[in-house]
Amino acid sequence: MISLDDLKSLAIPAQTRIVLLVLDGVGGLPRTGDSKTELEVAHIPNLDRLAGQGNLGLADPVAPGITPGSGPGHLGLFGYDPLQFRIGRGVLESVGIDLEMTECDLAARGNFCSVNAAGLITDRRAGRIPTETCARLCQLLEKIRMPGIQLIIRPVREHRFAVLFRGDGLEEGLSETDPQQVGMAPHPVKAEVPEAKRAADIANQFVAEANKVLASEHPANMILLRGFSKYPRLPKLTDIYGVRAAVIAVYPMYRGLAKLVGMQAVKTGDSVADEFAALESVYGNFDFFFIHVKKTDSAGEDGNFDKKVSLIEEADAQIPRLLALKPDVLMVTGDHSTPAAFKAHSWHPVPVLLYSKWCRPDGAPRFTERECRTGGIGHVRAAELMPLVMAHAERLTKFGA
Amino acid sequence: MISLDDLKSLAIPAQTRIVLLVLDGVGGLPRTGDSKTELEVAHIPNLDRLAGQGNLGLADPVAPGITPGSGPGHLGLFGYDPLQFRIGRGVLESVGIDLEMTECDLAARGNFCSVNAAGLITDRRAGRIPTETCARLCQLLEKIRMPGIQLIIRPVREHRFAVLFRGDGLEEGLSETDPQQVGMAPHPVKAEVPEAKRAADIANQFVAEANKVLASEHPANMILLRGFSKYPRLPKLTDIYGVRAAVIAVYPMYRGLAKLVGMQAVKTGDSVADEFAALESVYGNFDFFFIHVKKTDSAGEDGNFDKKVSLIEEADAQIPRLLALKPDVLMVTGDHSTPAAFKAHSWHPVPVLLYSKWCRPDGAPRFTERECRTGGIGHVRAAELMPLVMAHAERLTKFGA
Repeated sequence: MISLDDLKSLAIPAQTRIVLLVLDGVGGLPRTGDSKTELEVAHIPNLDRLAGQGNLGLADPVAPGITPGSGPGHLGLFGYDPLQFRIGRGVLESVGIDLEMTECDLAARGNFCSVNAAGLITDRRAGRIPTETCARLCQLLEKIRMPGIQLIIRPVREHRFAVLFRGDGLEEGLSETDPQQVGMAPHPVKAEVPEAKRAADIANQFVAEANKVLASEHPANMILLRGFSKYPRLPKLTDIYGVRAAVIAVYPMYRGLAKLVGMQAVKTGDSVADEFAALESVYGNFDFFFIHVKKTDSAGEDGNFDKKVSLIEEADAQIPRLLALKPDVLMVTGDHSTPAAFKAHSWHPVPVLLYSKWCRPDGAPRFTERECRTGGIGHVRAAELMPLVMAHAERLTKFGA
Repeated sequence: MISLDDLKSLAIPAQTRIVLLVLDGVGGLPRTGDSKTELEVAHIPNLDRLAGQGNLGLADPVAPGITPGSGPGHLGLFGYDPLQFRIGRGVLESVGIDLEMTECDLAARGNFCSVNAAGLITDRRAGRIPTETCARLCQLLEKIRMPGIQLIIRPVREHRFAVLFRGDGLEEGLSETDPQQVGMAPHPVKAEVPEAKRAADIANQFVAEANKVLASEHPANMILLRGFSKYPRLPKLTDIYGVRAAVIAVYPMYRGLAKLVGMQAVKTGDSVADEFAALESVYGNFDFFFIHVKKTDSAGEDGNFDKKVSLIEEADAQIPRLLALKPDVLMVTGDHSTPAAFKAHSWHPVPVLLYSKWCRPDGAPRFTERECRTGGIGHVRAAELMPLVMAHAERLTKFGA
């Protein structure tokens, strides 16, 4: 795969505008009976027309057979090889609740848990305490004072919370405290690399203090910490391609992922139509727009084939509005497949539609996984799509003389 | 390509069973007259039906344009990038005659040859002596005594033999003694890396002793050694994916290759039907089965198009028996192409058929190279197939959150 450094050296300025429309989990599997996938069943005349004029392809988000989480799935679409650029779970948890991170933060994912008098875990999730209780306990923990360290602790949901250790010299490479089973005491944090020694000391000190602070609470009288990770230093889209990039997404996780690569979040209402309205309202201010439609994935995870179909149709109905803006390049795809039949993210390659006046048209009759198999883009890694998008936007110059 | 370490971190236990059916050299080229390949001519209704329900693709065993030997061809199918994991010829020769190697063995491939009174080679193959003579001479050589070294020497065929130097501190990195032409003296063994110094001394000492032992023999009065290599330390399939893997193969070479990655050899008779009977008899004991059908390759090497066709049909006839076992994933492919028209291993990409309830079906009418070009697997490296197989067997969890 071509490196981001090489791409940066090829990037040239242009007045072109690019829209990346992500229908989360769009790739599907056939339903029983007629062997048609969600896309094949959906009535999507607008996307079908673009398929004929543009190019289709299939993309593996990470590699063949690998099912991605939302983080790697989106990084791939943004042009970052998810095998090279990894985002820790602590960072994702923080990003997912709109917590702003700085480069001197070490993030972790926390659980409130229950321990007995001997300090052995009796419930790893503290009976899934209500989120309000979690919020109150987070405030208690945030009052813990450690020299040179600022603590930022926020509830996520039920027993889960996010913690940022903000301070100098906090490096990655820490073991988890969660022994993953009851009847054991939480593990101490260990530094897996020498540079992480200070961070391990701070984390252990915090856990000890948390133990004291929570002593009189019930059932959440202890914490478990996992996924210690630094804010990833990703080269920003602006630095690589010179684009001013915006994200339009309802859920904080996706805004957070986009911010990691330098996108600016745009205010939007909750519906798909609201998101396209947001696009219209800021269209003059940016060069690159990432619009994220979440609910296709949720319907897939729920195993609701028909709902996923109608959500795909809902997105299709917005396409004329998008085309009225005359984007120079439009790419429609997913960050992974979430077939309703599988009820989960899956490894199946993702259908891709690329539309621009510079496409060598495939002439495909429809935008479906089946048509995508033989499209002009071929079968690629998701991270290979961004250079293709930039090329069609006339934002990459010749490589070599 | 995703690393084996990454795959190991994603592997999860499952109750699923996987069958990898390798029709050695299955990929073909059109015969003169009707432009049909072996697969296109073959009547294979069972494989054709699976092609419709599953996915097709093309795989390059090593890389485009690279013709693999049996070693790299199979390593690729087992999920090991043959460019990264290399197996020396000495090891392959040993493995091919069912010689058990240990990690302190240095293997070499030997030739008996003829030298004149001046020690110059007159025949590099000693007139292709009968295998029985080779066996007698191997016994003579095995009596050579060297301090700290155990010699294991076995005939292969005609003038060829395998030798294992068993002892401590024997490292790889030795030059060959075969000058590849007559009229020259055998080269001394040289250490190409400092660590191989001891091994070079031992090998030269052995050659000198062999020269004495064989002095009165005719025509095989000297030896040539090539392909010095250590037993490769490959991560085992069990360690990576947690599967208990078995190999069903008639020829020792393929059992040996499979053992290198941790498969257990299952007793089988010589016919294809015998191999499927062996599968049935051990089906409850393993999770992963590699069945190797050799003769398709032999027919291709012989340039016998019709024989290859009928051998492919013979394998197809066993498919219902295999499906009766209800494997969760079945992959049918070759380790390389051996087109009858080419009479040798070739670089042509290998047709792949993947069948599982989680396939997004291609709906292809037939299992042929032509149909494989537009299949859902795409055109991949052989080593990328194993993660795909494991994904369909629900043995890989999500990458990242």
